[in-house]
Amino acid sequence: MRTGTWLIGARGSVAVTSMIGALAVRAGLIAPTGCVLESPVLRERVRPGIADLVFGGHDVTSVPLEKKAAELAGSGVVPAALAQAVKDDLAAVEQRVRPLPAAPTQAGTAQAIADDLDRFRRRNDLDRVVVINVSTTEPAPAPHPAHASLDDLRAALADPLSATDPVLPPSSLAAYAALTASCPYVDFTPSTGARLPALDALARERGLPYAGHDGKTGETLVKSVLAPMFAQRNLKVRTWSGINLLGGGDGANLARPGANAAKSASKQRVLPETLGYLPQGETRIDYLEDLGDFKTAWDLVTFEGFLGTGMRMEFTWHGCDSALAAPLVLDLARLTAAAHHAGRVGPLPGLAFFFKDPLGEVPHGLADQWRTLCDLVSSLTPEPTP
Amino acid sequence: MRTGTWLIGARGSVAVTSMIGALAVRAGLIAPTGCVLESPVLRERVRPGIADLVFGGHDVTSVPLEKKAAELAGSGVVPAALAQAVKDDLAAVEQRVRPLPAAPTQAGTAQAIADDLDRFRRRNDLDRVVVINVSTTEPAPAPHPAHASLDDLRAALADPLSATDPVLPPSSLAAYAALTASCPYVDFTPSTGARLPALDALARERGLPYAGHDGKTGETLVKSVLAPMFAQRNLKVRTWSGINLLGGGDGANLARPGANAAKSASKQRVLPETLGYLPQGETRIDYLEDLGDFKTAWDLVTFEGFLGTGMRMEFTWHGCDSALAAPLVLDLARLTAAAHHAGRVGPLPGLAFFFKDPLGEVPHGLADQWRTLCDLVSSLTPEPTP
Amino acid sequence: MRTGTWLIGARGSVAVTSMIGALAVRAGLIAPTGCVLESPVLRERVRPGIADLVFGGHDVTSVPLEKKAAELAGSGVVPAALAQAVKDDLAAVEQRVRPLPAAPTQAGTAQAIADDLDRFRRRNDLDRVVVINVSTTEPAPAPHPAHASLDDLRAALADPLSATDPVLPPSSLAAYAALTASCPYVDFTPSTGARLPALDALARERGLPYAGHDGKTGETLVKSVLAPMFAQRNLKVRTWSGINLLGGGDGANLARPGANAAKSASKQRVLPETLGYLPQGETRIDYLEDLGDFKTAWDLVTFEGFLGTGMRMEFTWHGCDSALAAPLVLDLARLTAAAHHAGRVGPLPGLAFFFKDPLGEVPHGLADQWRTLCDLVSSLTPEPTP
Amino acid sequence: MRTGTWLIGARGSVAVTSMIGALAVRAGLIAPTGCVLESPVLRERVRPGIADLVFGGHDVTSVPLEKKAAELAGSGVVPAALAQAVKDDLAAVEQRVRPLPAAPTQAGTAQAIADDLDRFRRRNDLDRVVVINVSTTEPAPAPHPAHASLDDLRAALADPLSATDPVLPPSSLAAYAALTASCPYVDFTPSTGARLPALDALARERGLPYAGHDGKTGETLVKSVLAPMFAQRNLKVRTWSGINLLGGGDGANLARPGANAAKSASKQRVLPETLGYLPQGETRIDYLEDLGDFKTAWDLVTFEGFLGTGMRMEFTWHGCDSALAAPLVLDLARLTAAAHHAGRVGPLPGLAFFFKDPLGEVPHGLADQWRTLCDLVSSLTPEPTP
Ligand SMILES: NC(=O)c1ccc[n+]([C@@H]2O[C@H](COP(=O)([O-])OP(=O)(O)OC[C@H]3O[C@@H](n4cnc5c(N)ncnc54)[C@H](O)[C@@H]3O)[C@@H](O)[C@H]2O)c1
Ligand SMILES: NC(=O)c1ccc[n+]([C@@H]2O[C@H](COP(=O)([O-])OP(=O)(O)OC[C@H]3O[C@@H](n4cnc5c(N)ncnc54)[C@H](O)[C@@H]3O)[C@@H](O)[C@H]2O)c1
Ligand SMILES: NC(=O)c1ccc[n+]([C@@H]2O[C@H](COP(=O)([O-])OP(=O)(O)OC[C@H]3O[C@@H](n4cnc5c(N)ncnc54)[C@H](O)[C@@H]3O)[C@@H](O)[C@H]2O)c1
Ligand SMILES: NC(=O)c1ccc[n+]([C@@H]2O[C@H](COP(=O)([O-])OP(=O)(O)OC[C@H]3O[C@@H](n4cnc5c(N)ncnc54)[C@H](O)[C@@H]3O)[C@@H](O)[C@H]2O)c1
Ligand code: NA
Ligand code: NA
Repeated sequence: MRTGTWLIGARGSVAVTSMIGALAVRAGLIAPTGCVLESPVLRERVRPGIADLVFGGHDVTSVPLEKKAAELAGSGVVPAALAQAVKDDLAAVEQRVRPLPAAPTQAGTAQAIADDLDRFRRRNDLDRVVVINVSTTEPAPAPHPAHASLDDLRAALADPLSATDPVLPPSSLAAYAALTASCPYVDFTPSTGARLPALDALARERGLPYAGHDGKTGETLVKSVLAPMFAQRNLKVRTWSGINLLGGGDGANLARPGANAAKSASKQRVLPETLGYLPQGETRIDYLEDLGDFKTAWDLVTFEGFLGTGMRMEFTWHGCDSALAAPLVLDLARLTAAAHHAGRVGPLPGLAFFFKDPLGEVPHGLADQWRTLCDLVSSLTPEPTP
Repeated sequence: MRTGTWLIGARGSVAVTSMIGALAVRAGLIAPTGCVLESPVLRERVRPGIADLVFGGHDVTSVPLEKKAAELAGSGVVPAALAQAVKDDLAAVEQRVRPLPAAPTQAGTAQAIADDLDRFRRRNDLDRVVVINVSTTEPAPAPHPAHASLDDLRAALADPLSATDPVLPPSSLAAYAALTASCPYVDFTPSTGARLPALDALARERGLPYAGHDGKTGETLVKSVLAPMFAQRNLKVRTWSGINLLGGGDGANLARPGANAAKSASKQRVLPETLGYLPQGETRIDYLEDLGDFKTAWDLVTFEGFLGTGMRMEFTWHGCDSALAAPLVLDLARLTAAAHHAGRVGPLPGLAFFFKDPLGEVPHGLADQWRTLCDLVSSLTPEPTP
Repeated sequence: MRTGTWLIGARGSVAVTSMIGALAVRAGLIAPTGCVLESPVLRERVRPGIADLVFGGHDVTSVPLEKKAAELAGSGVVPAALAQAVKDDLAAVEQRVRPLPAAPTQAGTAQAIADDLDRFRRRNDLDRVVVINVSTTEPAPAPHPAHASLDDLRAALADPLSATDPVLPPSSLAAYAALTASCPYVDFTPSTGARLPALDALARERGLPYAGHDGKTGETLVKSVLAPMFAQRNLKVRTWSGINLLGGGDGANLARPGANAAKSASKQRVLPETLGYLPQGETRIDYLEDLGDFKTAWDLVTFEGFLGTGMRMEFTWHGCDSALAAPLVLDLARLTAAAHHAGRVGPLPGLAFFFKDPLGEVPHGLADQWRTLCDLVSSLTPEPTP
Repeated sequence: MRTGTWLIGARGSVAVTSMIGALAVRAGLIAPTGCVLESPVLRERVRPGIADLVFGGHDVTSVPLEKKAAELAGSGVVPAALAQAVKDDLAAVEQRVRPLPAAPTQAGTAQAIADDLDRFRRRNDLDRVVVINVSTTEPAPAPHPAHASLDDLRAALADPLSATDPVLPPSSLAAYAALTASCPYVDFTPSTGARLPALDALARERGLPYAGHDGKTGETLVKSVLAPMFAQRNLKVRTWSGINLLGGGDGANLARPGANAAKSASKQRVLPETLGYLPQGETRIDYLEDLGDFKTAWDLVTFEGFLGTGMRMEFTWHGCDSALAAPLVLDLARLTAAAHHAGRVGPLPGLAFFFKDPLGEVPHGLADQWRTLCDLVSSLTPEPTP
């Protein structure tokens, strides 16, 4: 079950860490720590396996994968010896990473993307290709009437005006192209991606599943277990404030107001969804070049208990974002491929576990999401979930 | 459904905070924040309600409840105005708190305790009485052959030697007396309580349920949601270290090595049970008189992600122990009474949610415990759990 | 040596906490904890003493002091019993708090303020009056040519246009009026106050001292000892980021961008001044109504050691801002009065210890500021500093 | 001014990090970050310079320096490329590291040590040799009457019984040998070292300076600036509790009760010395093998302000102990050599800045220690301190 994993943003930190990790796991050089489908309870349940994944992708930069790998080694994300050990395999992936196409209309660009996907599938003899967006977070796009209907969208994309006044942001154009080429689409970023009525219609027309948004790797992950705890104990959360300090390419981009706003919105949803109300407080994101790929998040929660007694909790999370994200990208590629194989169509609520801002009517507490994930795995496989 | 709530350690912080809180909720003076059975999803599901609880108890000190209430107000656990408002109702409870009896044999003491329980039930026209141990944590007792068999235990308790060389520690003698008087028994402390084969046999003989051990109110509560998060994400926890700084009567007692050891053991169980292995690290408890009823716990977790990357998380919990414990005591009284009413016998696994060291083969992650609790509530009531 | 202490913003949290505290210390009800001049090494060195201070002031609100005292008691800043105990004395102060005057020109307003100061001095038989600004932080004013010269300033203030298009912000108008009335002026806020060439000229013309800016009570205080530590150890600070979460009237005001910018600027100065370079990172201030008068600040410092090794430190400060500020207001009143008595003119560098953004060429590390303060005290008193 | 630096414990982490660092600085490969004498204000003031230091030493293990260097690179203390770059120079040092001698009496052992020192001086053409103890922390030794008098000590050391029932612990025997060989002695550990009346007498007899104890590199360093801050602000510290989590060879040793007690005692002194009283609370040290050479310390300080308001501060320090210690070892070698050259005799109070538990009547706040250090530097050099 050879499965293509086509990464939009294939030369970025998350993408290259995913590639190196998958290659190293396949070569038996490292344990698949951080891969959810390799945890004791889910191990060997989902096909394709990590070794079945074949990587390719688009990017707007042409920095070689090897150079990015060296950077990741320099900043401590990837052990230098490991980067060295998979060097040749990575050079093979390099052959399958292509510049993002551009054409006179957005329809033309979409067609060129779809052609790249087809070629990738054929040349590598793949059963299917999953497209995963791990490119730079976009600001929220202006609303456009064509977002609401697939016919209108097709017309608008073909309009020459779409070259200068785009109908779809890049993430959604990639989703459109993927679905057109019969590839399931997953958005690991907070960008719009497939999250438009016209694209949902397209996915249903083609019988394809899709998933998103925004990989849940740090502060929001912790929130998604702490907030249910407060709710179940009937403790009233008064304030919940957080600050995220991060460097790296993602951090540099999030220092821009538009992208920052998109990300902050995505991070906040877990609280009202699990508590039933929104406590005071904001989530800030600050860029500190010097922190590199490591991120520090600090949260303060003040809450009220019996007889009105005021109490507080604070936590600091110091994580390597790419190392947290990369194994989830592998999980998502495998699960989406398996869901496609099983004939699932439309958004995949069973993948809420992986996202800050999951699609559909899904639970937002991590424990419930875990159960939904285990149910999905069971439904995709003959064996019963333990 | 008037339900007696007989507290062993009735003059302590947890006990008196429970009493004041229940009286204030009944009088409509405060919202039942922190009471799990009053959270939106479980509200109005379990009978008896808080207003149906009638308090009494034993203690070894004779400090008046009113004096303890004033102390709790002074240290910020109870609002002074609230203590004032329930003064008369508390004076009524005072009439039902009795000195812990003592007789020439432990059998005689147990009989005197049971007589107090009977009298409490009859005089107050109660449907049933639940006995809850909230007294000072004991050191683990020396093993004794009579702990293994009910017949041997009865004989040993009647032996005059039992006066000077006790067969049972106080918590277990209280459990023995409670079960003998047909009262369900709950242990909110890490002490032995009903956790002996002979007492399990007695509970089954009398058709009674029991529960414990050690109310889960702070650091361990947080651990019980964070540890499953690391497990589900397949992140490898390398070290987990904690320190608890606390004052108050409980803190003073836990400064003694025996009690400290009992408590620390109780706190550690959640990690191996949820992670599947025991990471390096210890949980320390230090007494700081000056902190009063507020406790600060700090934990450091170091973990390993994809490609072996080292990461870390730390949290500080600053809580008021009595304010966290008291509403759970009310929940436990109600749930145990309802379980008794429904004919449950033996340990109650559905109450694992409330305990650091729950009895039986139960889940140790909070989310699973929450589900088990909701199932229990559903099985005790006609309405379906939402 | 009866000394008037005229507070601009006399009905605010800092002002009323200062008054209650001074009255309670005078009545022997509390120890002068937090008063620097009452620490073992400086005790009994400076005249006037706390008991010699007589309070009055201006405010734009008319909320009674007693009401504010009740609020402060409700939020835990002032013990309720203490507020009760000084009730009558506070009522006497109430008689000396007046609405901020307003006249057709800024010159007229200044004259009315000066008249109030004169009346306060005469009616209360005071040796001198120190004016201290503890009112709401202002945004930085637009530059104005008249700020540079005293003659120009006098002319501009008298211009009727000054009513609608103010020449001076309120803090500087208060400083102008104070100096005109021969009163030393201290600014406890980051507002402009006497920090203009024209006002410096006025102070020198009248032979008066002045001081400021922005009382140093929390995060910046800690920075002023940690930053010198890193410098002396020759450790390279890479990033220093902070967030301040606060409620209260000051917090509500600092949520406004202008005031927030003024405050953040004031807080940052200590790092370049003590380290010799400015590390990456920002200081954020967020308003959380629910936190009331308590503030939580969190700072992350990343630094580099021998062989380039990366290390980090973080701290959380949880303080009651008014309780930290009020005793410093008493110290400043006493020291400024003593300096006036001793004939000091112009900015008082010896008071840098008290300020985030001290005037003049002064040290910014706390230890050096402490030494400068001890030297000032010695120079004002016959006895040698121990 | 070629200066021998003879390290007791020459194959340990601190020693080898010092050697690699000095060699790398001399080769111009790294900046001397963390070296106090290389900070802007003290740079080029003290002779010898780092490049003038020639290393040798004793150890009880025979693990090659190169192997230790590889370990330090593996755990992130030393960059791998740097270890590689100084490989040949380190091999030269290897020739000068000798096994710790042992003889039938302690006098004999001391003589053998002294002979090694003499040989080192002669063979390497050194102006002088400073002996610095960076070996494993010892438990406090049993008191012995001969510790009080140099004559008694000499007699006792010569007694054959001293072989089996030692008169001096190893650190003091090393000090005795060093002083006998006319070498100044510095103790970077909390062990006894030269801190005995008989050894002070020996130092004076030989006209030699000595210094100690216990390099101040983490939690105590921070305490030494925060505690004076609380004192100067007249804030009452109620509790100060700390926990140190560390791995490495030092951590493994400190897990033993005797060494742990010695270290904890050393760490606590700063509080009573700077605050004037001892707040409640303990400093714990826990060993966590998995943390390697990085240490995390967490401290909680609760304090009381004006009107009795309770406040708190906590900090986390995450440092690499060897990287913090090594540059101080270089500073101490240089300063002690310069003091010897200048004819200083007895304990060197000017070095208190470097130690947790400094010798003599010295200040304990870091700022005052910094001033004392600057004064010492000035007195050793012609140029005035800025
Ligand atoms: N790392 C995490 O923990 C995490 C979690 C959730 C979401 N994300 C998201 O994942 C994305 C990638 O993060 P990263 O750290 O790898 O960032 P990065 O900056 O290292 O990589 C982004 C890559 O996308 C490329 N790119 C930009 N615009 C593109 C376009 N239109 N088409 C194709 N490629 C384009 C860039 O050239 C770059 O190579 C971000 O959007 C981030 O917000 C990351
Ligand atoms: N507060 C919490 O969050 C929490 C959580 C879990 C467990 N607990 C446990 O609850 C218990 C009570 O805590 P607390 O803070 O109220 O302590 P406390 O010291 O205030 O009260 C204990 C009371 O028990 C009484 N007592 C002692 N020995 C007795 C005996 N043999 N029989 C009857 N009474 C006896 C004491 O006189 C005292 O009044 C402790 O064992 C504690 O470990 C508390
Ligand atoms: N509390 C601290 O730790 C601290 C530290 C440094 C600086 N400060 C500064 O001290 C000031 C007071 O803080 P607070 O917490 O008491 O605030 P507050 O909001 O409680 O009080 C401010 C008072 O000033 C009054 N006021 C507003 N404009 C005025 C004007 N033009 N003339 C006279 N009165 C006026 C308000 O009506 C109010 O009563 C703020 O500027 C704050 O930034 C406080
Ligand atoms: N690293 C720091 O920040 C720091 C701070 C203050 C004090 N110290 C002290 O410095 C010392 C060294 O720390 P480390 O991390 O290098 O430890 P380490 O365990 O890596 O090294 C200690 C070395 O001493 C050797 N040794 C043991 N007994 C000896 C003896 N009798 N004679 C000669 N050598 C002997 C050991 O074989 C080992 O090589 C410890 O005592 C530690 O407490 C370290
Ligand atoms: Na922290
Ligand atoms: Na913290």
